[in-house]
Amino acid sequence: MIKPRTLSGFMELLPPEQVYFDEIIKRLRESFAAYGFTALDTPLMEAAEILLAKGGGETEKQIYLLSKGDNDLALRYELTASLAKYVTLYYNDLTFPFRRFEIGKVYRGERAQRGRFREFYQADIDIIGDGSLDILNEAEIPGIIYSALRAIGLEKFVIHINNRKVLSGFFEILGIVEAATGTMRAVDKLSKIGAGKLSEILTLDLSLSQSQADEIIAFTTSADNPFTILEKYKGKNATFDKGLEELSLLQKHIKDFGVPDTHYKIDISLARGLDYYTGTVYETYLTDYPEVGSVCGGGRYDNLAGCFTDRKMPGVGISIGLSRLFYILQEQGLLCDDFYSTPADVLIIPMTDDLSDAIKLATSMRESGLRVQIYTENKKFKVKVSYADRLKIPYVVFLGEDEISKAMITVKDMATGEQTTASAGMLITGICDKIKEGKKTNEKILI
Amino acid sequence: MIKPRTLSGFMELLPPEQVYFDEIIKRLRESFAAYGFTALDTPLMEAAEILLAKGGGETEKQIYLLSKGDNDLALRYELTASLAKYVTLYYNDLTFPFRRFEIGKVYRGERAQRGRFREFYQADIDIIGDGSLDILNEAEIPGIIYSALRAIGLEKFVIHINNRKVLSGFFEILGIVEAATGTMRAVDKLSKIGAGKLSEILTLDLSLSQSQADEIIAFTTSADNPFTILEKYKGKNATFDKGLEELSLLQKHIKDFGVPDTHYKIDISLARGLDYYTGTVYETYLTDYPEVGSVCGGGRYDNLAGCFTDRKMPGVGISIGLSRLFYILQEQGLLCDDFYSTPADVLIIPMTDDLSDAIKLATSMRESGLRVQIYTENKKFKVKVSYADRLKIPYVVFLGEDEISKAMITVKDMATGEQTTASAGMLITGICDKIKEGKKTNEKILI
Repeated sequence: MIKPRTLSGFMELLPPEQVYFDEIIKRLRESFAAYGFTALDTPLMEAAEILLAKGGGETEKQIYLLSKGDNDLALRYELTASLAKYVTLYYNDLTFPFRRFEIGKVYRGERAQRGRFREFYQADIDIIGDGSLDILNEAEIPGIIYSALRAIGLEKFVIHINNRKVLSGFFEILGIVEAATGTMRAVDKLSKIGAGKLSEILTLDLSLSQSQADEIIAFTTSADNPFTILEKYKGKNATFDKGLEELSLLQKHIKDFGVPDTHYKIDISLARGLDYYTGTVYETYLTDYPEVGSVCGGGRYDNLAGCFTDRKMPGVGISIGLSRLFYILQEQGLLCDDFYSTPADVLIIPMTDDLSDAIKLATSMRESGLRVQIYTENKKFKVKVSYADRLKIPYVVFLGEDEISKAMITVKDMATGEQTTASAGMLITGICDKIKEGKKTNEKILI
Repeated sequence: MIKPRTLSGFMELLPPEQVYFDEIIKRLRESFAAYGFTALDTPLMEAAEILLAKGGGETEKQIYLLSKGDNDLALRYELTASLAKYVTLYYNDLTFPFRRFEIGKVYRGERAQRGRFREFYQADIDIIGDGSLDILNEAEIPGIIYSALRAIGLEKFVIHINNRKVLSGFFEILGIVEAATGTMRAVDKLSKIGAGKLSEILTLDLSLSQSQADEIIAFTTSADNPFTILEKYKGKNATFDKGLEELSLLQKHIKDFGVPDTHYKIDISLARGLDYYTGTVYETYLTDYPEVGSVCGGGRYDNLAGCFTDRKMPGVGISIGLSRLFYILQEQGLLCDDFYSTPADVLIIPMTDDLSDAIKLATSMRESGLRVQIYTENKKFKVKVSYADRLKIPYVVFLGEDEISKAMITVKDMATGEQTTASAGMLITGICDKIKEGKKTNEKILI
């Protein structure tokens, strides 16, 4: 006999939680579709050289490798390499700008720890241009983040927005050239390490002068309106000016895209870790749970598929670590208890030996759009009713000789305990209406 | 530079096909839910010993193994082992009979050939009992197969149904004991190899007498009503009688479950390959394409999780090889051309420098439930319109100074070429109605 177990770091949900999780995926799909994104579902396994083409730094070490015959294979550890391959391979069949979303599992052989998964869902959207991509695509992203997170029940979050050109240009203005990449990475850690530690890193590790470090700290930590600070440096550097122009355009249109003032912040200390990004960058924090870090981030990049093609394909994209987000919501008690997750709307308990009438009733109820089970196990009456109770099935139908002879059915509303006997047609209509009503609760699972 | 490629045997779809495939998954989910099944989404990777616990025969050789640290890991090659683990591991949290469906990817390192995939979707449903499971669950399955296949657009198919007890009992009546398993396997191949070859295998390979072989052939190939033949053997063997009783009950109720006479057949030659099955077995064939084999099969088994627990858990289940089915439909030209697979309902082409009005319009259209893109790339007018054309976006909105000053918008219906200028509110309502109408085509993608 083998002891059953699920690998640690692999999320496996009980049925009610799974219904919740699936509803989140469904809503994300709808949110992304509203902005004209089309779904992809690329293989989870690729030739190792495809996934490693770009080099993934630390993450690369966590990749699951396997071999079959002569092939070195790997499980994807994010969705971007698969996208880069896809747009290059099917370039002639696609229409650009190409807007796709993919919600799928990825694999990282990390050390297992609470809230870190080895198999987890990522939900990514990207807009890929052919040669060029207009800034408006970057401006649209906060609107997508806002509506997607609202759709899945989040209310209190702030989208932080910056433009990497502003930081790059600012560093150039300060005369920082060789240490620019290191400085970018250090600044990105500001919110975690604080100004004192940042100053230390800048001067000691990166050999910047104290005045350079001071100016960086003043620039990134100022409490003033960010545009007031940015305006001061205008006209000194082309990259900076371009970044400021883009950031201003974003700010100008953000309300038109439906994002309220309360839900975004221009944050000039935001850099994002990856060198990959070249323009607008985004991170999203839960207002009441800043310690969990960003739940949705991304940015603009200039070249998606440089390792596969000479064709320049700039893009902008964001990613939600869905399994981790779900784990956080669950851990913080933020999943709505009222969520309707029962597997059926009606349980029919036949009280006769011949089941023909019960089956016909179930079939006609299903044709009316109801989800119906017939309970046929040979158990005590109490066990039969408790089956509905445990699964939170809201209506139980009893069908005995008496009902059948009168062409009636008896329905018990499990919430109120009320029992009604009437014609099947009438009761089916009544149940359908109430189920529709009940499902509205699900539409507003807000935190 | 690395040549982009997708591994052979891994299905990867272009966007319009992916929309179609996703719609099939959505409809299967709804069909299964109508019968009270709840969704599971178990890990694709498990400890190798879990997946190999039961032993998978030939299939086991195709398993993808990998290791990380001290762990021997494997990718699932079907969904049943994961289910067996799940119901044992979460036994106390589940309510039995437990009805679950899982639609997910599985992996088999087969020799690549047309229509055979190494990564493919299986759509499984199973009903698991705790200790016992009523025959009515077996009787319900043809109704589920029928409604699921109809939901995804199939019209001409026949569900073949048999009961393994009938065959086992029949073999016992003939005095076949040691060779029973081999005989079952041989009979299962009848439709492929024909009566002559079957007779040869029975007498030469399995050492049955010629009269035993003749009786088996007569029994399984008779053109008579199967129940006429079965009645002849009644009363001679308890297993046979039990099988006949179950098969009769199935036949009695099949119409109540909504399956028309045209769509099922009691087929006493049907055995299914796996020894695993103990009661009703099912296979489903496309009427016009018998050569592709069964598209949905399964059956009753007595013990799901014997390798994980002493607890007896009988069940009944079916499986659809979804990727293969999709491939067949595509190859036979059976996918409906009218299928609505565009990524957006409306493309807004702004004709002004300031995009505020275009963005606000897009936002309000999205709030009305439309899927909207704004085209902002710096291209010639013709290229902008052809973007909508290539993606089959049905409505293009032009928004110029003239429209904005009059609080109007201009909509082009891409199918008719007709252009209308009117208030946004009015046109949005009109588009919503037409889109709703258009989506009805999708509801009847019948073959």
